[in-house]
Amino acid sequence: MLLDQIKKENDIKAIPKEQLPKLAEEIREFLLQSISETGGHLASNLGAVELTIAMHYVYNLPKDKLIWDVGHQSYTHKILTGRREEFAKLRQFGGISGFPKRRESPCDSFNTGHSSTSLSAGIGFVKAREILHEDYQVAAVIGDGSLTGGMAYEAMNNVSSLNSNFTMILNDNKMSISENIGAISTILNNVRTAEPYINLKTGIETRLNKSQLGERVANHLRNTKNSLRQMLVSGKLFENMGITYIGPIDGHNIDQLIRVLDQVRKMDHSVIVHVLTEKGKGYEPAERHPRRFHGTDAFHIETGEPKVKKAKATYTDVFGASIRKLAAADESVVAVTAAMPDGTGLSRFAAQFPERFCDVGIAEEHAVTFAAAMAAEGLKPVVAVYSSFLQRAYDQILHDVCMQRLPVVFAIDRAGIVGKDGETHQGAFDLSYLSMMPEMTVMAPKNKWELHDMLKFAVNFDGPVAVRYPRGTAYDGLKEMRSPIVYGKGEVLYRGDAIAIFAVGGMIPEALKVRQRLEEEGITCTVVNPRFVKPLDEDLCMEIAGSHKLVVTMEENVETGGFGQRLSALLQKKGIGTPVEVVAIPDCFVEHGAVDVLKEKLGMDESSVAGRALAAYKKLGR
Amino acid sequence: MLLDQIKKENDIKAIPKEQLPKLAEEIREFLLQSISETGGHLASNLGAVELTIAMHYVYNLPKDKLIWDVGHQSYTHKILTGRREEFAKLRQFGGISGFPKRRESPCDSFNTGHSSTSLSAGIGFVKAREILHEDYQVAAVIGDGSLTGGMAYEAMNNVSSLNSNFTMILNDNKMSISENIGAISTILNNVRTAEPYINLKTGIETRLNKSQLGERVANHLRNTKNSLRQMLVSGKLFENMGITYIGPIDGHNIDQLIRVLDQVRKMDHSVIVHVLTEKGKGYEPAERHPRRFHGTDAFHIETGEPKVKKAKATYTDVFGASIRKLAAADESVVAVTAAMPDGTGLSRFAAQFPERFCDVGIAEEHAVTFAAAMAAEGLKPVVAVYSSFLQRAYDQILHDVCMQRLPVVFAIDRAGIVGKDGETHQGAFDLSYLSMMPEMTVMAPKNKWELHDMLKFAVNFDGPVAVRYPRGTAYDGLKEMRSPIVYGKGEVLYRGDAIAIFAVGGMIPEALKVRQRLEEEGITCTVVNPRFVKPLDEDLCMEIAGSHKLVVTMEENVETGGFGQRLSALLQKKGIGTPVEVVAIPDCFVEHGAVDVLKEKLGMDESSVAGRALAAYKKLGR
Repeated sequence: MLLDQIKKENDIKAIPKEQLPKLAEEIREFLLQSISETGGHLASNLGAVELTIAMHYVYNLPKDKLIWDVGHQSYTHKILTGRREEFAKLRQFGGISGFPKRRESPCDSFNTGHSSTSLSAGIGFVKAREILHEDYQVAAVIGDGSLTGGMAYEAMNNVSSLNSNFTMILNDNKMSISENIGAISTILNNVRTAEPYINLKTGIETRLNKSQLGERVANHLRNTKNSLRQMLVSGKLFENMGITYIGPIDGHNIDQLIRVLDQVRKMDHSVIVHVLTEKGKGYEPAERHPRRFHGTDAFHIETGEPKVKKAKATYTDVFGASIRKLAAADESVVAVTAAMPDGTGLSRFAAQFPERFCDVGIAEEHAVTFAAAMAAEGLKPVVAVYSSFLQRAYDQILHDVCMQRLPVVFAIDRAGIVGKDGETHQGAFDLSYLSMMPEMTVMAPKNKWELHDMLKFAVNFDGPVAVRYPRGTAYDGLKEMRSPIVYGKGEVLYRGDAIAIFAVGGMIPEALKVRQRLEEEGITCTVVNPRFVKPLDEDLCMEIAGSHKLVVTMEENVETGGFGQRLSALLQKKGIGTPVEVVAIPDCFVEHGAVDVLKEKLGMDESSVAGRALAAYKKLGR
Repeated sequence: MLLDQIKKENDIKAIPKEQLPKLAEEIREFLLQSISETGGHLASNLGAVELTIAMHYVYNLPKDKLIWDVGHQSYTHKILTGRREEFAKLRQFGGISGFPKRRESPCDSFNTGHSSTSLSAGIGFVKAREILHEDYQVAAVIGDGSLTGGMAYEAMNNVSSLNSNFTMILNDNKMSISENIGAISTILNNVRTAEPYINLKTGIETRLNKSQLGERVANHLRNTKNSLRQMLVSGKLFENMGITYIGPIDGHNIDQLIRVLDQVRKMDHSVIVHVLTEKGKGYEPAERHPRRFHGTDAFHIETGEPKVKKAKATYTDVFGASIRKLAAADESVVAVTAAMPDGTGLSRFAAQFPERFCDVGIAEEHAVTFAAAMAAEGLKPVVAVYSSFLQRAYDQILHDVCMQRLPVVFAIDRAGIVGKDGETHQGAFDLSYLSMMPEMTVMAPKNKWELHDMLKFAVNFDGPVAVRYPRGTAYDGLKEMRSPIVYGKGEVLYRGDAIAIFAVGGMIPEALKVRQRLEEEGITCTVVNPRFVKPLDEDLCMEIAGSHKLVVTMEENVETGGFGQRLSALLQKKGIGTPVEVVAIPDCFVEHGAVDVLKEKLGMDESSVAGRALAAYKKLGR
């Protein structure tokens, strides 16, 4: 097997060029086998095999800098840099990450995870090279979906400040995670339908003419007169920005990719190489359903069916059903997503209410301000978004929504520990960054019925509201404890008198187990569902804290600025001396791994929390 | 005077068109007189007089929605909507704001303040109009500088989702606040140098041909064959995005502006009207020095000289001098600004170290990730930015800098209450949003020497560091109290034994006065300069809090997630019962006004703090 010859970076260069397609097949087979067992990002990786091979054939690692936008397509890169055997523990705690990580390999030059950062990072590397008079190459890969993120344009606008080569590789698979949105997508489509054409502008012209490629290109130029004009126009989008445009190139033709990249890296200015790839390439179920195989759990290769079937509704499902119900009853309810109709549970909403469904592409900043303006005109926009991506619109939430007290609802999915995607995707900060914003209301539901009740409350509230809920199965316990949502009021689920547990949203099931354990020790517990993280239910907090010996707070959010810290400060201010044990994500980034494993490591699982509560309680006795 | 006829919106329509240039002159004279007395944004407003007149002549307010990007150019709009007499109290507490405010007038359809939001808001209004079947017009004005902000592209990418007219007016004055940066600017320059040309695409063609304008255009088309191609290419930037491009138009020719806008609003799709204006138009000192007259204090009209000369160095000056000193000693120090070389004190750095100075345009997100990559290659980038603008890069600081523990220094100017620019510009959140980020170090200097020492510490520290300092004069007291910065360690400035005051950075001068007042009452005070807001100097906090009867914390930052709250939570956790009086910005947006007035209103001035401390202290006695 050719793959066995690759133990580390640059080993690929010992493989004869004509055997590289075979290597691609082996890698594809390996990816399929491996991901079908561990789960992971499949479709994007199958699409980038040949491109990655060509890049590794042309560039020298770790000297040269390759930057992968988002980074979920970096599996082949990991294989070619000696990490193949570690794929058995892909995305597991202690195993390799599904994204580039500097700590894993010097060949991972820059960590990614969120969209549209690779060009900015690439420009930073090029600028550093110029300042330090070094001579490494810099190539940044960016997907067509990531091009809907504004940051990519901020970067392109700065390419003209560079005085040397910067290679941008547009990996165009016609998708972000879902279908692509907007004008950029239309432009790229026009290019795709044109005949292949390689722009011979500036320095590359003569060099390319001397190569075989040059001849092929010259032929194309003769044969494609009509599409040429279209191409020029399209290429101009980039060329207006001072960037030479080359493409489109067949992203599964290794030979052509290598020849183009080899020429491009010799150029003395910035180039964008437009590469056409197919998401899911080589695995028919993924080719047909690239969205389903974007990120996947373990599956049967023969059928593409997941190995473990989902038994219960997720919070995403519950949100999707709720919001459709609310939209059916109220014509002013509008849903907004940033390129994730599936991920956020809005696909059926989109089908049912197409005129009230807005997918703006990977563009969280625009999404929020756009929603703010709709709210200003009397609509009730619901922005459905993952916690870690909403971070990107921090200023828009503050400046455009809260400052005008506009009734935008933020339905925040994947809030808390999300698991295998790791630190870039943990929803660890939303309670803190939202609670500091004046006019903002922040809620977290205890179970699936409360999520619905909170959404209903939120769309009818005259101001910004965030409802945050965790990834995965919606808790369906405590069904009997359903009571109307009252602004700023929490609820007491169980009454005891020794320890008071305040558990935020997704931590409530664990709080109930902690209570059981403590009661087994003869310690009676009160369990409070605060419902509102902001505003704090100060009366309830003080009453409960004042009448117990110990307060334990539980939240899947960083400690700083979170619920527990704010409750602690309240008690300190009011002179209520009850000690507070704050269970929260400590001041560190939480890497990838199974959620239960991570919670244990962080001291946030039921057993750890019970232990911490017990220790703190016993200390009081002394 | 024509201006006297304008008591409210739409009154302008009673003025004959041929008299509008006279009205423009009156407005210009009024602006000049008024701003020379109150201070305010001069150059941008002088440049937008004719454009605003034309817009008010064409559109019907408040039904139609006019959105002003950033909003500092909205003075004429305020005058034409009946707020002229309120200009005497412009930007003063209780007076009108220097930015559009929905609470001021129904004609201010959307609040702005930060850059590049107007297109997103405009699209939101158009979408709402479509969903609600209303028929108002939507026109968003955006400056050429704001076009370097990525959010504007996220918006343009979504224009194709609209099914009706949306008018974007590109107010092109060749500047953001300073000279414009990058590719977009080059594109616009190419357009500017071309002969005027109005694109006749789609529906407007025949309508325009029937008008006088049509004839003029037809003439131009005949006369400008060569530049036409260039124009098409340039216009294509927008037209590729599905937007009809019209321009460039002379932005000081009211007649032409009215005719174009009147045609454009009848179109059934999205249009960008490219208007050329001159910043500072009509006032020679501002035409010559538009940067100096962007935002100005009161000045003498004859000379343009400020009425009150700056007596002492500002923190901005101190930063500028320090960073040049550090860069002279260390070749790896690089400075990054997002379009504010003057505002952040980097102009002389730019002249002295051009190859190490990076102005990326209004593009905070790119700035931060770009800096992160330079840091990954061993450079020491210093990102100089105002607190309220750094918010826009919240995710990039977290995701690209902190997660990789890259040594980027954030020099955060205008942190705390900034005064007259009001809520959009207060630096009220940075301590909170930075303190929650793992790996981040957050510092605030007590005086100008400590700012230098902290910057020196920061550029030599192996991880992300933020140094935040207030707007205005650098404090030059406590010169004798200069001691080396030690990571995570605060310093005790004065020892007492009753009340311990922990004052962050810019609050230290006030803390000293509070101490004096309290000592006059016979209450001795300890004053602590924490230096590090993150990490907290826990040992010092506990030792001091444990040995005093009352703790007072002072910070110009919101309470939630701030220094005082974190110190309170620490004490609660450690069982130290000393009550804490947290002096911080309460949970509200702080409007415009003089800094001292605002501090008094917020209970943050020396007298309020002393009163609060005294009251809390006396309560203990009971």
